[in-house]
Amino acid sequence: MPTRVAIDAMGGDRAPAVVVEGAVEAVQQSEGSLHVLLVGVPVEVEPLIPAGMEHIEVAPASEVIGMDESPASAVKSKRDSSIHVGLGLVRSGQAEAFASAGNTGAVMAASLFTLGRIAGVSRPTIAGYYPTVDSFCTVLDVGANVDCKAEHLAQFAHMGSVYAERVLKRTNPSVALMNVGEEPGKGDEATKAAFELLSEATSINFIGNIEGRDLLKHGADVVICDGFVGNVMLKLGESIADVLGHFLAAEMKAQDLDEAQRRVVKSVLAGVARRFDYETMGGVPLLGVNGNVIIGHGGSTAAAITQMILRAGELVEHDVANRIAASLA
Amino acid sequence: MPTRVAIDAMGGDRAPAVVVEGAVEAVQQSEGSLHVLLVGVPVEVEPLIPAGMEHIEVAPASEVIGMDESPASAVKSKRDSSIHVGLGLVRSGQAEAFASAGNTGAVMAASLFTLGRIAGVSRPTIAGYYPTVDSFCTVLDVGANVDCKAEHLAQFAHMGSVYAERVLKRTNPSVALMNVGEEPGKGDEATKAAFELLSEATSINFIGNIEGRDLLKHGADVVICDGFVGNVMLKLGESIADVLGHFLAAEMKAQDLDEAQRRVVKSVLAGVARRFDYETMGGVPLLGVNGNVIIGHGGSTAAAITQMILRAGELVEHDVANRIAASLA
Repeated sequence: MPTRVAIDAMGGDRAPAVVVEGAVEAVQQSEGSLHVLLVGVPVEVEPLIPAGMEHIEVAPASEVIGMDESPASAVKSKRDSSIHVGLGLVRSGQAEAFASAGNTGAVMAASLFTLGRIAGVSRPTIAGYYPTVDSFCTVLDVGANVDCKAEHLAQFAHMGSVYAERVLKRTNPSVALMNVGEEPGKGDEATKAAFELLSEATSINFIGNIEGRDLLKHGADVVICDGFVGNVMLKLGESIADVLGHFLAAEMKAQDLDEAQRRVVKSVLAGVARRFDYETMGGVPLLGVNGNVIIGHGGSTAAAITQMILRAGELVEHDVANRIAASLA
Repeated sequence: MPTRVAIDAMGGDRAPAVVVEGAVEAVQQSEGSLHVLLVGVPVEVEPLIPAGMEHIEVAPASEVIGMDESPASAVKSKRDSSIHVGLGLVRSGQAEAFASAGNTGAVMAASLFTLGRIAGVSRPTIAGYYPTVDSFCTVLDVGANVDCKAEHLAQFAHMGSVYAERVLKRTNPSVALMNVGEEPGKGDEATKAAFELLSEATSINFIGNIEGRDLLKHGADVVICDGFVGNVMLKLGESIADVLGHFLAAEMKAQDLDEAQRRVVKSVLAGVARRFDYETMGGVPLLGVNGNVIIGHGGSTAAAITQMILRAGELVEHDVANRIAASLA
């Protein structure tokens, strides 16, 4: 039986068109292993589905939460939104995972409300990806929790370790605290206390503190920080490729390169930029709720939606939510 | 009369040799406008000074604070260290500025102890540089203060604005808070409260929140954050050029470039890397103490030391410490 992934057909800046397009591609790529439920307003979504497609259907929702709506009020007032309905399908067992490129705050709040927290998790977290010289690392938290206590950071470490081992296939994944220095005793109050908690944890491979310069150099498989630091790092990383293009253009001009030489530099840069492109991974997991949830970029293209759905399938395949529950039990 | 800059001849991984070399170069470049006091152990420093040099002399200090010593205890026990003596010269008016590539924590602690805080400053701050598509911006704080309250962040904004206007020659410099979103109301508790304080400030050009992706795009002339976030961003930035070299090498291999094409890419990369090289700026100012202090990288080369001394001269020329005092009065 195929894995059933519910996708928020109304979520994202270019929904529902790009969502349906990305979902169709995901179904085709999965060769029967995925069944996609397009959650949204039928009259808007149905006409977009190619005739005769198998493994794709519409799950009706009458309301839409806008990208800029206040999550707190929208989650309370729009109980038949595509986000609520999609998460409800996971809760009732009609889908094994939910993915959305919609309002991130609303997805988080509705996930907590609909699915609840895993026992032992105070705060669910979003695990981001960061390209490194080796491949990539995962960073938790990347914006869900801006004010964190030590125990929250320690829980992120446990969740990230399970995720890296199961989904990212890292054997005994290394876990490090992002900090202002490598020595124990460095950092703000929360980080110092988290260092103590993690030093005592036996079920994870805690390797200590790393610094900002270690992130891109793959200082660890799993990098732990509060959502403020993680969000700043992630967005800074996303901008590198863009800015690099600007710097390289200025430098090519200064060095007076000819057209053929410029083409070489641009082609190499394009290869590097792909590493920093969120489309490659599509979306990031919301960890710590009782269910598998993937959150995508509001600006997601069809290609990014396809990747989000595949990532959602991976969470199910590797039973991530249950394994996190077991790890924290 | 030349500006007298005291430099810590014993500070840095390769002191005193590179410090003396850098100081000699600074004096030569300044063409009589700088007089350098090499603060250190005379028997180690004097033999390194070329015969017949003018505008360079040794200021004796009998002790050295190591790079890895605990600042708190070293600052108390080694009162005749090169750091103490150098700052003492500033306090007594025998020098107008002090620069050190030594133990940063010790320089900060000794600066507070010897020079004291400017009235209205709760916490002195280190203002870092960040390359941007325009030129560069200054980021405060970059590691001096990891746990910050809103009023500390607001003070950083005032100090950074004076520095950017006077030394960096920005007219009405834009000041922004680094945050997880652009909208007012975003962020952790300290940042949200700092937003309120800065919105009410009439003497600075506060433009609101910026995000990690705006940093390299020159979102503001002056970027305000706590020292944890600033330190992570700064070190991440310092690593970009290195890591980029690695990514480009992998990409050149993948695209099977020939030797001539590789040379073009490497030459362009070298130009970009210079933007991220701390040697270009040399050192960063410690703002908020009653005196002009420049802090350098422990790994400073002679070229970086030269730049540090020139930066120290600029602080004096633009009367930065007094102007900060006036701004906060």
